[in-house]
Formats: sequence, C-alpha cells, structure tokens
Amino acid sequence: MIELNELHSPADIKGLDNRELEQLSDKLREALLKKLSAHGGHVGPNLGVVEATVALHYVFNAPEDQMVFDVSHQSYVHKMLTGRIGAFIDPARYDEVTGYTSPGESDYDLFEIGHTSTSISLATGLAKARDMKGGHQNVIAFIGDASLGGGMALEGLDYAPTLGSNIIIVVNDNQMSIAENHGALYGHLARLRETDGQAPDNIFKALGYEYVYVKEGNDIERLIDAFSKVKDADHAVVVHINTMKGQGLPVAEVNKENFHFAGPFDLKTGAPLHGGSSESYTDMFAERMLAHIEDNSEVAVLTAGTPGAFGFSESRRLRAGKQFIDVGIAEQDCVTMAAGLAKGGTRPVMGVVATFFQRAYDQLSHDVGINNLPAVFVEFYPGMFGMNDVTHLGFFDVAMVSNIPNIVMLSATNAEEYQAMIDMAVAQTSHPIVIRTPGGAVRHSDRPVDTDFFRYEVVERGEEIAVIAEGAMFARASEAVDLLRKQGLKPTLINPRILSSVDKKCLDSLAGYRHVVTVEDGIVDGGFGQKVAAYLSPRGVKVTCLGLAKEFIDRFDVKELMEANGLTPEAIAATACK
Amino acid sequence: MIELNELHSPADIKGLDNRELEQLSDKLREALLKKLSAHGGHVGPNLGVVEATVALHYVFNAPEDQMVFDVSHQSYVHKMLTGRIGAFIDPARYDEVTGYTSPGESDYDLFEIGHTSTSISLATGLAKARDMKGGHQNVIAFIGDASLGGGMALEGLDYAPTLGSNIIIVVNDNQMSIAENHGALYGHLARLRETDGQAPDNIFKALGYEYVYVKEGNDIERLIDAFSKVKDADHAVVVHINTMKGQGLPVAEVNKENFHFAGPFDLKTGAPLHGGSSESYTDMFAERMLAHIEDNSEVAVLTAGTPGAFGFSESRRLRAGKQFIDVGIAEQDCVTMAAGLAKGGTRPVMGVVATFFQRAYDQLSHDVGINNLPAVFVEFYPGMFGMNDVTHLGFFDVAMVSNIPNIVMLSATNAEEYQAMIDMAVAQTSHPIVIRTPGGAVRHSDRPVDTDFFRYEVVERGEEIAVIAEGAMFARASEAVDLLRKQGLKPTLINPRILSSVDKKCLDSLAGYRHVVTVEDGIVDGGFGQKVAAYLSPRGVKVTCLGLAKEFIDRFDVKELMEANGLTPEAIAATACK
Repeated sequence: MIELNELHSPADIKGLDNRELEQLSDKLREALLKKLSAHGGHVGPNLGVVEATVALHYVFNAPEDQMVFDVSHQSYVHKMLTGRIGAFIDPARYDEVTGYTSPGESDYDLFEIGHTSTSISLATGLAKARDMKGGHQNVIAFIGDASLGGGMALEGLDYAPTLGSNIIIVVNDNQMSIAENHGALYGHLARLRETDGQAPDNIFKALGYEYVYVKEGNDIERLIDAFSKVKDADHAVVVHINTMKGQGLPVAEVNKENFHFAGPFDLKTGAPLHGGSSESYTDMFAERMLAHIEDNSEVAVLTAGTPGAFGFSESRRLRAGKQFIDVGIAEQDCVTMAAGLAKGGTRPVMGVVATFFQRAYDQLSHDVGINNLPAVFVEFYPGMFGMNDVTHLGFFDVAMVSNIPNIVMLSATNAEEYQAMIDMAVAQTSHPIVIRTPGGAVRHSDRPVDTDFFRYEVVERGEEIAVIAEGAMFARASEAVDLLRKQGLKPTLINPRILSSVDKKCLDSLAGYRHVVTVEDGIVDGGFGQKVAAYLSPRGVKVTCLGLAKEFIDRFDVKELMEANGLTPEAIAATACK
Repeated sequence: MIELNELHSPADIKGLDNRELEQLSDKLREALLKKLSAHGGHVGPNLGVVEATVALHYVFNAPEDQMVFDVSHQSYVHKMLTGRIGAFIDPARYDEVTGYTSPGESDYDLFEIGHTSTSISLATGLAKARDMKGGHQNVIAFIGDASLGGGMALEGLDYAPTLGSNIIIVVNDNQMSIAENHGALYGHLARLRETDGQAPDNIFKALGYEYVYVKEGNDIERLIDAFSKVKDADHAVVVHINTMKGQGLPVAEVNKENFHFAGPFDLKTGAPLHGGSSESYTDMFAERMLAHIEDNSEVAVLTAGTPGAFGFSESRRLRAGKQFIDVGIAEQDCVTMAAGLAKGGTRPVMGVVATFFQRAYDQLSHDVGINNLPAVFVEFYPGMFGMNDVTHLGFFDVAMVSNIPNIVMLSATNAEEYQAMIDMAVAQTSHPIVIRTPGGAVRHSDRPVDTDFFRYEVVERGEEIAVIAEGAMFARASEAVDLLRKQGLKPTLINPRILSSVDKKCLDSLAGYRHVVTVEDGIVDGGFGQKVAAYLSPRGVKVTCLGLAKEFIDRFDVKELMEANGLTPEAIAATACK
C-alpha cells in the first residue's frame, strides 16, 4: 500500500491493484476533507471525482496523454497525483497550489482554466495538433459540474467528432451546477442515468460519438474498465460517468449548493468556521430585487447559473417564483433572453459575475446595444475586490462594457447610491444599463443621493486640482482630498457615477485647472479616465489616469496591488499635487 | 389572384388558396431575382425560403404572433409580405429597406439581427415575457442557413423547452452554411433528411421538443399543414424543413457558396456584372498563408464558417488540405481550438471578420490571453471600410482587443507591411497576435518595411507637431502632413503599428511638442489614441484623438463619415495646427 507522501507522479499508482487504488482514494479523500475544511475551496466537485481522477491516471499516461479539466476547479485530485501532494497534506504548504490547473505549476497542467465549457475546444486543438505532428497520444476532456451546457462546450461537442481521430470526452455527471441544473440537456442526462445509458434519442450518438455509460462513477474498478476500453480509440468517444458531488462528506452530499465552494468549515457539522453575517451588497441586491418582484409582476431576475453570487439563495429563489430565471451556465443565452424580455415589455435584471460577463460581449453589443433595449445588468465582483485568481479577474469590465454604444454603465460608491441606481434602472425603459456593484465592504453615506446619474456629481467644489474617482476608489480619493486639504490645497472631488460617457459640462468647468486625477477600480486602458484625459488634454488641462496596469495577475493581495498602482490615499494625494 | 403591388400586409394573403399561394410565391421569387440580380444581396438564402415565409404568414398572425429571423438576411420575403413590397418591385425604391430585420422600418420586425444564432434566445425572452403578461401569441424562431451550430443557438435550444409553454423553432435546413456545413450536427440533420425525419437519436426529441419534419420545404401545402398543426402549441416544437438554397436560380442551386451573398449579376449566366479582378488583401492573405502551409506542415488556417471572407475559396481550401480547418459558425470553439493548437506546438492562424470576432471576446481573453499562447488572428473588414450595416460594424475591434493583456494588436498601413506582419506572426512563438487587415483599396509602398513592429515607426521626424496614424488612416494623415508642410510646418509623422501598448520611448521623444494628433480607423473610446493621450497628458503635451464617435450607425457613406469625424486630410491638418 502506498502512503500519500510517497506519491510523486502517476507512475507510483500504476502497479496498484483495485483494492489498493480504493484505499488510495479513501486516503486522498480524507486529506482533501482535512485541507478543505481548514482552508476552503471547491469542496463538492473534488470530493466527487476522487475515483474518476485516480482511474484516469491509472489508465492513461500523463503527461504524454493530455488531460484538460473543465472547470479546472475539479483538478485537486489530479494535482495530488502529479507531484503536488505536499500542498494537500502539509498545512504549511496549502497555498503552494492554485485552485485551478496551472502550467506554471506543473507540466501535467496544460492550461489556466477558470471559466466553464472550454475543455472540448482546447482538447480538439490538442488533438488536431497531434494529428498534424503524427503523434499518437490520447487527448481527454474531463467536463462536468454543469460545464456541458455552455454554448462553447456544445460548439466543441459538435465539431470534435469531425476530426475523425482520438478524442475522449469524460462527462462528469454529478447532477448539479453550482446550484441545481437548468436546461433540457440535464433532463436528457437524467433519462440516460435512469436507463443505465439506454434511453432513446442519445444526443452523443446523434453526433457520432461512441457512447459509454458508467453507472457507478465512484467505483474505481468500473471506471478503469470503461477508460481502458476507450483508450487509444481512433475516433471520438463520450464516457458518461455518474458521480456523487460531495461524496464522503454527508452535509455536502445533501447540501450540494452550499458546498460547491466553501470557506473553512467544521468537518463534523459543516458549519462555517468564520461568521458570515456581516452586511453585504449581495444580500442588499437580492432583497431590493425581491421588493421589486413583489411590487411588479413584470420584473424578472435572471442568472446564468450563479444565483448565489448575488444573494439568490434557494429560499429567495422560491420567494421570487417564476420571476426568477436561471438558464444554466449560458451567459450568451441569458443576456439575449434579457433583450427579448425587454422587447416583450417586461423589466429584466440580470445579476452577473463580472468575469463571466465576458462570455456575452457580443450579445451585449449586438442584441442589447444595437437594439437599445432597456435590459439591466448588475455586475458582481467587478474591480480588484472580488476574486483574485488569474482566471476570475473582474477589473477588465469597464474597458469591455463602457466602449459599447448605447450601453449606460454606472458605478456606485456606497449602499444608498447603489440602491437608488437599481431603482432607477428598473423604473426606466430608455436605456440598457450596466451597474457595477461596489467592491469591498459595504459603505454607507449620509450624503443625499443625487439621482441624476447620467451626470458627474461634484461632491466638493474647490480649485486648481480635481480628483474624479469612481466606485470603491471614491472613498480612497475622498481620504486623499482630506490629506490635500491639510496641506492647504482646495481640491475638487467628483463622483462620476457614469463611466460610459464623459460629462462635458462638468469637465468644462475644470478649464484652467492645474491637474486632474482620475481614479478607477479597474485597468486604466480603455477605462473612464482615458476618456477624461482625451477630452481635457486638447483643452490644456493635464490629466493623470490612476488605476490598474493592464496585466493578468494571480492571487494578489489587494492592499499590495493598490500600493503598487499608486491607489492608496497617500499616493493619490501625492500624484494630485505633483 | 393577387398582384405584388396589392400586397400591403399579411392579411392580403389569408384568403388565397394553395394554388394562388403558389402563384404568389412564383411572383415573389421572380421579383426577388430581378432585384437581386440588379442590386445584389443575400441571393441563395432568400430564394430558398419564399414558400416557407409565405406559409408562415399565411398560418400565423403577425405582428401579434412574433417571428424572429436568424440570420435575418433571410427576411426579404417577410419584408415583401409586410408592407414593404415597393422596395422589391420598384427599382427606384430598392434602397428603402435594409438587408436585415429592422424595427425602425416596420412593427413586423422585432430586432436588428445580423449575427447568427440569436433567434432562440430572443424568442425565449419574448415567450417568457408573454407568459409573465398572460398573453397567448405564438413565438417563432426561424433559424437556419448554418445558424443552428452556433453555441448561443445551442444554449437557446437547451433552455427553451424548459419554459413549458409555446415556442416554435423552424429549422430551415438548406444543407449549407455560407460555404459547406461543418460539425457533427449537420451529419445528424442529413440522417434525418434521408429517413424522412425517422432517424434514431433525434437530438430535438432528446431535448424534449415535439419534432415535425417537412421533406418538401418548398411546397406551400406541406408547409401550411405542418405550421397549422403546431400553431398554438402549449409546449416547445421544432419544425425541421428541408429547403433548397437558391431555388429558382439554377446557377445558385449549383454554386451555393458564390450565391450566398452576391453583387449584381447576369440573371442568365450568373456572371458578376462588375469586374472583381482588382488586387485585394483577401487574396494576398490567402496566397501568403498557402505559401506558409506549403512550407510548413504545422501551419494551420482556421475559420468559423467564413472562409470566403479572407480569400479561401473552394480551390484554395483544397490546396490547403488538412491544414485548413472550418469549425462552422462557432467563433468561440475556433478561437479556443487555436489556443489548443498553439499549445500543441503548431502555428494556428485564424482569419476572422472583425464584427464576428466579438463572439469570442472571452475566449481571446481567458483561453488565449491568460495562457499567453502564440495563436494568430487576422481580422478582416475592421474599421470603417468594411461592411456598413449596423449589425456588421467593424470599428469596435481595437477597443475590444487592445485592452486585453498579453494580446499584441498590430495594424498594417500597406501591403508590404501587412505581409511582413503575417510572416513575423507565423514565425514567432512568444505572443498571441491580432493583425488588422488594412481597410479600403490595396496600397503599396516602397518605404522599406521596418519589422520591429512592437515599436512605433517614425516615418518623418519633424518638430512641434506630431501626427500618429494607424492602418488605413495613415495614408490620410500622410496627406495631411504634406498639407502642413506647404504651410511651412515640419510635422513628425508616426506609424504606430502596435495598438495594444504605447511606445514610451518614442512618445518621450515628443516632449516639448505643441500638439500631438492621433488618428485611427475605429472609435476613439478605448482606442490607441486615448492611451497616447493618457501617457502624454501628464507630461504636458496636448493630445487630440481623432477617430469615430462611439455610436451604432447604419448604411453610412465612408466619405461622409470621415468628413463628419474630421478624418479627411484637410481636417486632420486643420486639427493638428490648432
């Protein structure tokens, strides 16, 4: 029997028999439970694929055989088996690995992957490259946990068999997305499960795949049998495995949604170790929208598979009833369905995680923007205060959204302003509106809300120097202005609110100013500051644009990031009086 | 019998019998042929759906019943039947209608639609709005001509049946995309056609649709039967109709690709009326890539269903063999497959129409950008010199692409530079590179190509005033500089080439300049000029950014657009010496 600390590479498990592989799986699961309960992470998805990952590495020969995990938050066990066990059994080393596959970490990892539904396209590229080079390795896409319903996965599923060569798609069917599944495809998968893979109208067979069903997707022996049979196939294969999300942690098996991703928790009870009762913008949004829903039967809240990201827990979804729409992980469909709902005279409001909004750029432009339909999109975790994995960065959103015509992009600086923006957006029917939920902790203000959101708000009128700061940066800029006042300066402080156009009248009032500084919670390139600079520069006003550098960064510390980019109150003040 | 000039609304055809409807269809087709041969347009798609559109309007009651056309280039007959016949039978009025559905033109048109695969999502939104409002109309998505393979159509197909109410999806199966179909789904449709709809593993049934097959999709009577049966259904239905693209024009029935969209042509021979033998960047690209393909078996050219847009005609595709990849209209899959190909060590080069590149924003960022994979993307029809339909604008691409980290965006000013950029991009393996094909007629230059493309090229070093102009704007700026010289000024002229970052060293050399003008073939917001302004403004140099206003405009005249935005040589010169 092998001990976990002896696991250096997949070669170490090749000689084990089924019983030893089962024992290994138990140990891996035990270690996972220990780490995840102390450290947090994607709990349910990884507990569900312990046996499948062991079987994959037993049957196939990575890194020659190429595996793509989708979403790669299911790759913890893969990491444990490919030279990174230390980061799972030694608490001091828990942070040595990222939560996703990462080529910088290991040659066994091929891509950074944090958005869903990419694996079949990536695998198709690898397979075609293999064919062009005359290689013979297996290429495997391991897709599941709701990734299959995304449009790009379906595009991949459509194209892959036409290669006419080896590609193996493992559909990890754990019957779940982050929340429950949506979309007719999952009804089809359910019928396949119920019939041991025999249901008629098999969608995979329709596309020309060899189809293999594994009823016991947490049974090593069955998995090895199935994978061995399809290894080295000269055509496209789907292996549909029925797994249990959260297996081995009873609370996670029952409450799959809460344990999709969790912070540190009590291993016995499942209770979170750190309190979570502080005020949040997500709860604020959810309650505000429920009030609108109760008030108006034509208000709908939409999501593409991430209801929890904006406070729509199961109980709140029940309260919203048919006015809550979850299309599954299908951002394109969701944004364009919102366009249809707006055209149909209802008031659609989509909650969307900033990084996932990227999937629907064209839909926002072509379907919502060109048609100028009054759909509302409320972004969560935009800017630098959200997720900090390189695959989930939220600070490119202003560059993406604000340069599309017709779309009004608003950014709130505090709770009162945020709620007033939501109310205005729901009430109006003239514009598509995107609202940035402020980053960081909830801030309140007793400054009366100026609801003329399409204009800049001059919070303090001074002279010579102006600071224009949006969203979460406004509070820092406000502190900077205090510092400047202590130096005897009288800066003007502006809260722009609207990021998609400049308030020319307000900017004209800065003529003759010595220096204007813009501060934004996002990259400078393509952001609102550069629009201000382009407007004021020919008018003889110097503008400095502060914000983040245009780069992909991984697992950063927000405080350090602000320091590095000159975004602390002290740095903003120093820049302003340069 | 009704005459075409008596067609005012769909009510006018309700009393006709089948024979009269057939006669009407013949007249509509005749009028279409006359207009299209004289005027150009989407020939094959519209000739194929004459009977289907007549049957739709006979059975359903628009505008109460809501029809969404996808792509809406198939909506000419719909326009003829809904009050716009004059624009099809009176040559003086041919330009009164756009080539797509257009709500500004008629209440029978619900959305501006020019990109594929949007109809099911839009229809789902309309259907949900109907259900929320307690309405009872039919909602119909008319999808075909390759739109069904796009990921967002598949997302819609997945979600629509879960509404549990009326939605009717007419799959117009004309066996074609713009070129031949790609993807396993089309093999499945072929099997359904061959078996009169009886083939096993029916993908529509798998998703819970009622499925109806119409073998004779150009037979009014059969179509009316089928549509009548599913009218007012309380669930989701797919009506799969087998139509003939180009029906009624023998050359178009045979050569479907060439007659997907055509300029004016001889009705008897099909020969184009206007010569097309002038030099083009598309041919240049195709021949250059064929040379690379012949030279290196690991070079691949990819497309998402639009090979003709960059010169890859059928004969050239044959020359490229297995090194040419068409994934069908699936931009997401294509971009991410390119990432996989690059990871696999080959050299993928995707040709992509700028407006359709929008579909793959997230893939460009998440799969190509974060992973920093050396895939190459060559954009066609970027800027203002490409298509001028509001749904096909190409001048948002710099704002979209250039603000994504790691992506190197290059813009060529002439043929020699363009080809050198392609050669460099194929040869290098350090960066993802996006190349803008210059807009307008091919320009040659005997200026030696400076291949250090990651730096600005100072074409003429002067003083006090600098003009930095990219792509097709460089020639205009060059003329502007000539005008300024005649006034005794000595401007500096710069060709930036790289749009995704500023050349700080070069810009530092402009310290002390009186005025810098940037000129770009795209919107100013989010473009390269604003990056220059943001860099130089705090350094005390005034910068004026010239380019297009951020707005959606339809069927513009390029010359007028340049005049309106101050982009003529005279206007650039006048701005520069302000």
